[in-house]
Amino acid sequence: MDPAVIEQKDARGIVTLTMNRPSSFNALSEEMLGALQAALDRVAGDDTARAVVIAAHGKAFCPGHNLKEMIAQPSLAYYQQLFAQCSRMMLTILALPVPVIARVHGIATAAGCQLVAQCDLAVASTEAKFAVSGVNLGLFCSTPSVPLLRNIPAKQAMEMLVTGEFISARQAMDRGLVNRVAAPDQLDAEVESLIASILDKPREALAMGKELFYRQREMGIAAAYQLANQTMAVNMMDACAQEGVGAFAEKRKPAWKQ
Amino acid sequence: MDPAVIEQKDARGIVTLTMNRPSSFNALSEEMLGALQAALDRVAGDDTARAVVIAAHGKAFCPGHNLKEMIAQPSLAYYQQLFAQCSRMMLTILALPVPVIARVHGIATAAGCQLVAQCDLAVASTEAKFAVSGVNLGLFCSTPSVPLLRNIPAKQAMEMLVTGEFISARQAMDRGLVNRVAAPDQLDAEVESLIASILDKPREALAMGKELFYRQREMGIAAAYQLANQTMAVNMMDACAQEGVGAFAEKRKPAWKQ
Amino acid sequence: MDPAVIEQKDARGIVTLTMNRPSSFNALSEEMLGALQAALDRVAGDDTARAVVIAAHGKAFCPGHNLKEMIAQPSLAYYQQLFAQCSRMMLTILALPVPVIARVHGIATAAGCQLVAQCDLAVASTEAKFAVSGVNLGLFCSTPSVPLLRNIPAKQAMEMLVTGEFISARQAMDRGLVNRVAAPDQLDAEVESLIASILDKPREALAMGKELFYRQREMGIAAAYQLANQTMAVNMMDACAQEGVGAFAEKRKPAWKQ
Repeated sequence: MDPAVIEQKDARGIVTLTMNRPSSFNALSEEMLGALQAALDRVAGDDTARAVVIAAHGKAFCPGHNLKEMIAQPSLAYYQQLFAQCSRMMLTILALPVPVIARVHGIATAAGCQLVAQCDLAVASTEAKFAVSGVNLGLFCSTPSVPLLRNIPAKQAMEMLVTGEFISARQAMDRGLVNRVAAPDQLDAEVESLIASILDKPREALAMGKELFYRQREMGIAAAYQLANQTMAVNMMDACAQEGVGAFAEKRKPAWKQ
Repeated sequence: MDPAVIEQKDARGIVTLTMNRPSSFNALSEEMLGALQAALDRVAGDDTARAVVIAAHGKAFCPGHNLKEMIAQPSLAYYQQLFAQCSRMMLTILALPVPVIARVHGIATAAGCQLVAQCDLAVASTEAKFAVSGVNLGLFCSTPSVPLLRNIPAKQAMEMLVTGEFISARQAMDRGLVNRVAAPDQLDAEVESLIASILDKPREALAMGKELFYRQREMGIAAAYQLANQTMAVNMMDACAQEGVGAFAEKRKPAWKQ
Repeated sequence: MDPAVIEQKDARGIVTLTMNRPSSFNALSEEMLGALQAALDRVAGDDTARAVVIAAHGKAFCPGHNLKEMIAQPSLAYYQQLFAQCSRMMLTILALPVPVIARVHGIATAAGCQLVAQCDLAVASTEAKFAVSGVNLGLFCSTPSVPLLRNIPAKQAMEMLVTGEFISARQAMDRGLVNRVAAPDQLDAEVESLIASILDKPREALAMGKELFYRQREMGIAAAYQLANQTMAVNMMDACAQEGVGAFAEKRKPAWKQ
């Protein structure tokens, strides 16, 4: 059977998850959400994984939820379960110990735009377009607003949510929704440059740092510093940091076994 | 008598509140604050209102508080009551179930700049200018700093607050303080394009979404998602969303009675 | 002996702290941290200080911690104490009653970039460069992430932290990390223009406003307004504000004794 998500892991530990339902533009059906969750859970338990790339087959990146599925089961209990399933997947991205990069071509709307916002990093094709357009159908993009407001300025987020209008890849970059924009034929090279930079760093340092980054964001600044102090002290005791700092002091390259 | 705020509601439910004290540049006197509060309270109770536009007559949008009034009553109790009255009006904008758009021409300073920052959306004339300039008189714009810091980056906010200097409409847009800038003769058309987009959407979806947007901003991300899940499930049970999502699945326009 | 920090105070109350270990690029050694802490503590107790400028001698602004010192004492207890000492100094900047301006030329990396982010305002030479590059050595810049994420958008912060790459002064300004960029020979003039603006304002208004600014940032918006109301009422009772507001109402310049 044709899998909803194609999972590939290369020799370097880069896991690429390619959404593979081009006929539905890779909508986040229950099947798709389940496949993403299972794949992300596997990464969480895989000490040799170094980064995740979320990509998509076909014309679109992701249009959000599968509307046919939603309209077929009009009960509060079903919708509660569906949005909980989706948000759980989003929070799994945040909790992963490795960086997660969205590789965005084509449209990313509603929960598809949310998926981009929730990733740690995002690279977009110049042809990509972004919208939180549920409101066009009477369904305000409330869950997408959670990571969107943590990515871009409040009034710009509100305008996107209220109007449902598209922004370009360039606007998305200027506002903070994506990190880099590349011509379609340079998209993979741009993603690869981020990957190469990640592979250069010790996995453990990135894991500690990513966890601290999101935790301290929710704290007052004094508590944030206190937690960061502990994280840095523990990180510095790690063999990789001892070797890295020592190598720097001795003006040589760190000799990391990875 | 000439009202401090001219209240107009059109057949579509768009409520325009025009500050009407051009001789004092529409300063937020007790009279002006009272008139804005009363008008906003009426909108809060009016199920047929769809959006609010805050505009102004005369050369300026709003220069902030009425300084003659303030200097005439030099008591702590008076100032406490005055700032509480002003902040209550600002929080009423945030709590309204419809989007509130600032239509800004001319200067918006101190609590006038705050008023722009507190609105959900803002459109400015190319000739508009913004400052939080109380510090020039020895009165740091502390209350304006509350929505300003929730609109623009921290160092840019601090610079405006410490120097009291003006920024242009273009700078205000680049930083996130306003959504759009238009030539003076295109200002109403730009506001109208936002209104038209809002009118296209079901009122209830916007109301649920706006409330969730500001509530989730104050939460940790896990709690924010949990609340957003509930909001979306309830929104999806609404007749408008059922019709909108169903129409989309059937490739037709939603037939909303509004 | 050659001091680690050269402390100069001019007749106007401007305190310039110049990091003075060009041979180590002004690394934040224990000696440097101690000297900065002592100097900042003196400013905290000096009612005639009006602003602080943090500058540096030599080619670099600051490369962060002193790595030779760190590698020489590989114990958790030492690292905990070191990061606590550094974070205490950073929080002292935030708590100072006067604005603190970073004057940045050359590179500012790791805790050196953090120092820029932690200051209230920052002016950079066009030749300055910024990175949170600890991750290159296996030590994720966790403590720098605390003020960085409170200065610039989340995805841009994450990219800098994960890749360790430099951004230019211009990029730092566009993102919100610095306020202004100037050609090297205009750097002091640009800093001076901020100082002149600060000196024009009453010290007490700036002190009250700065404290409120950072406190309200950590609050929900309703509580933030409540605290800001009190701050403004108390500020308005101050003699300087009474004179300033009165002078404005009478269309004359305020006659402040400072």
